[in-house]
Amino acid sequence: MGGDRAPAEIVAGALLAAGSGITPILYGPADLDPVGLEHVVAPDRIAMDEKPADAVRAKPGLSLVAACRAVAEGSADAVVSAGNTGAMLVAGLIHLRRLPHVYRPAIAVPIPTAKGPSLLLDAGANVDARAEHLLQFAVMGSIFAEELLEIARPEVRLLSIGEEPEKGNALTLEAHALLAASDLHFRGNAESRELLRGAADVVVCDGFTGNIVLKALEGTIETLLDALRTEIEATPRGKLGGLLIRPAARRLRTRLDPDTYGGAYLLGLRGLSVIAHGNSSRLAIANAIRLAGRGVDRDVVGRLAARMPERRSVAAV
Amino acid sequence: MGGDRAPAEIVAGALLAAGSGITPILYGPADLDPVGLEHVVAPDRIAMDEKPADAVRAKPGLSLVAACRAVAEGSADAVVSAGNTGAMLVAGLIHLRRLPHVYRPAIAVPIPTAKGPSLLLDAGANVDARAEHLLQFAVMGSIFAEELLEIARPEVRLLSIGEEPEKGNALTLEAHALLAASDLHFRGNAESRELLRGAADVVVCDGFTGNIVLKALEGTIETLLDALRTEIEATPRGKLGGLLIRPAARRLRTRLDPDTYGGAYLLGLRGLSVIAHGNSSRLAIANAIRLAGRGVDRDVVGRLAARMPERRSVAAV
Repeated sequence: MGGDRAPAEIVAGALLAAGSGITPILYGPADLDPVGLEHVVAPDRIAMDEKPADAVRAKPGLSLVAACRAVAEGSADAVVSAGNTGAMLVAGLIHLRRLPHVYRPAIAVPIPTAKGPSLLLDAGANVDARAEHLLQFAVMGSIFAEELLEIARPEVRLLSIGEEPEKGNALTLEAHALLAASDLHFRGNAESRELLRGAADVVVCDGFTGNIVLKALEGTIETLLDALRTEIEATPRGKLGGLLIRPAARRLRTRLDPDTYGGAYLLGLRGLSVIAHGNSSRLAIANAIRLAGRGVDRDVVGRLAARMPERRSVAAV
Repeated sequence: MGGDRAPAEIVAGALLAAGSGITPILYGPADLDPVGLEHVVAPDRIAMDEKPADAVRAKPGLSLVAACRAVAEGSADAVVSAGNTGAMLVAGLIHLRRLPHVYRPAIAVPIPTAKGPSLLLDAGANVDARAEHLLQFAVMGSIFAEELLEIARPEVRLLSIGEEPEKGNALTLEAHALLAASDLHFRGNAESRELLRGAADVVVCDGFTGNIVLKALEGTIETLLDALRTEIEATPRGKLGGLLIRPAARRLRTRLDPDTYGGAYLLGLRGLSVIAHGNSSRLAIANAIRLAGRGVDRDVVGRLAARMPERRSVAAV
C-alpha cells in the first residue's frame, strides 16, 4: 500500500518481477486483487493526518510493518516498499533491527555514471546526521562496493562544496577529519558537479543533502531532455534531426532513468530492505523487486554483517 | 587576482565589459598589464598555505580588499571577484559592512527556468545557517524579486526533501514554521527536482545546501549534454541528426550556461558586490561586470536598504 500509485502499480510490478526464482508476496488489504500472486492480508492504513513513523509504531497491520515482520520471522527474504521513507526506516529499526555495530542504517543509491555505478549514501534515511555516522556510511559503502560491485579498493569521497579539505560546513569538516584518519581509501571532498561524471566509487553525505542532490540530478535530467525536445521541435530542421537522434536519446534516457534501478538498499539492518521511489511505475517496482532478489542471492546483509567493524575500530582515531 | 584563471581572463573580461557606461578598474599587482584599463596596484597575494579569510584580515593590499575599500570609500560603485567566496564574504563584512537589520549576507543566484529566473539563496555564503537566517534570506529575496525582477507578490519556497511541511531536517522544520508565520508569500517546501522547472520566484536554503544543489544542476547539464553528444556520434544516423539539431542544442546550452549570468549578487551589504565562478571565462567575467553595472543603475543596495524590515518585524512571530 506504499507509494503514490499503490496498489495498482505495485501489484503490476510484482507480477512483472515474478518468476526466474522470485516469488512476490503482496501485503495489503483484504479487497486487494493479487492477480494470482501470494497475498497476505494487512488491513491497516496510514491515515491522512497521521505521522507515518507514528503509524508504524501503533499499527501492526500496516502492509509495511507486516512485510518487515515477515522478513524478520524468515517467511520472506526481503521487503520492498515505495512508501514513506521515514516509515520504512522506523519499521526496519523496530522489526528488522540494526546489524551489530551499526549506528544508523543508510540508503545507498547507485548513481549511473560513465565510469559505472557510484554509490551515494545516505540518500535520505538520516536527515540530521553526525560526523561519526558519515564515517560509518563510508565504511558500509566501501564493504558493499568491495563485496557486491567487486571493486578492489573502493575510492571514497565526502560530498562538500569544494575539493579543498577546509571547504564545507561544520558537519563535513568534522567528517573529513574522521575519514582522513580512517583506513578507508579516502580521496577527499567531491563536488556535486562531479557526481554524474563518477566522482568516486562511494560518495558519502548526510541524508538531507543526499536526498536533495539526488532529486536535483533526476529533475535536471528530466527537465533538460524535455527542454531539448521543445527546442528541437521548434523548427522543421530540428524536427528531422530529432527523429534521427531518437534512438541515441532513448539509450541515454534509459541509462539515466531512476526506474532502471528501481530502488535502493537500506544498508545496516538485519534483513534485506529495498526502498523504491514514491512515484514508482510498475517497471520501477519490478526492478526494485529484482534488486531485492539479487541482494538475497548475493547475501548483502550477511556480507555486510561479517565485515562490519566494531565502532571503536571504525573511528580509528 | 581572484579565481582559477586570474589575471588573464579577468583582464580580458574587464576589457570586454568596458564601454556603454561601464568603466572597469583593475586591482592587481604592479606587473599586471591592464591593457589600457585603469589599474590600481594591490601588491599582496594569498599564500598557498594561508586561509583566505585570514589573509583578508591580515593583508590590506590584497586585490579583493583594495577593491572592497574602493567601494566603501566611493571611488568605485561595485566590486566583482571570482576569488574565494569565504574571502569575499569576510572582505565584504569588514569593509562594506552589513545593511541595518541584516544578520548575514547571502548569495542570490538566478536559476534560468522555463518560467523565467528563480532566485536561489543562499548559494554559498553561510554554510551553517540558522532558521532565522533562512527567514531573512526569504525577505531579502522577496524584496529583490519585487524591486528588481518586478514580480508583484513573489512566491517563496523552502528547499527541502519533500513538499509536506513535516519533511526536512531540524533546520528546515524550524525555518518552515518561521516562514509560515511571516507575512511573506510562502508556498511551502520545494523539492530540488522542481528547481529547473521554476519551483518559485524565490527559493531559500542554507549556503551549503544551495551550493551543492547549484553545482549539481550545473554539473548535470554539462555531463548530460556531453553524454548525449557521445551517444549521437556513435552512429552515422545519429551524426546527421546531431548536425540538424545543433542550433537547438546551442540555444539551450546558452540559456542554461552559468556564464550567461556570470555572477551573483551578495545581498545584505552596504556596497554592491558580485561573486563570479572561480573558473570564470572572460565571457563570464564580462557578464558579471555587466550584472554589477545593472545593479548600480538599478540601485540594488539602496532599494534593499530602504525596505529591509527590522529584525523583530522580520520574524513576525
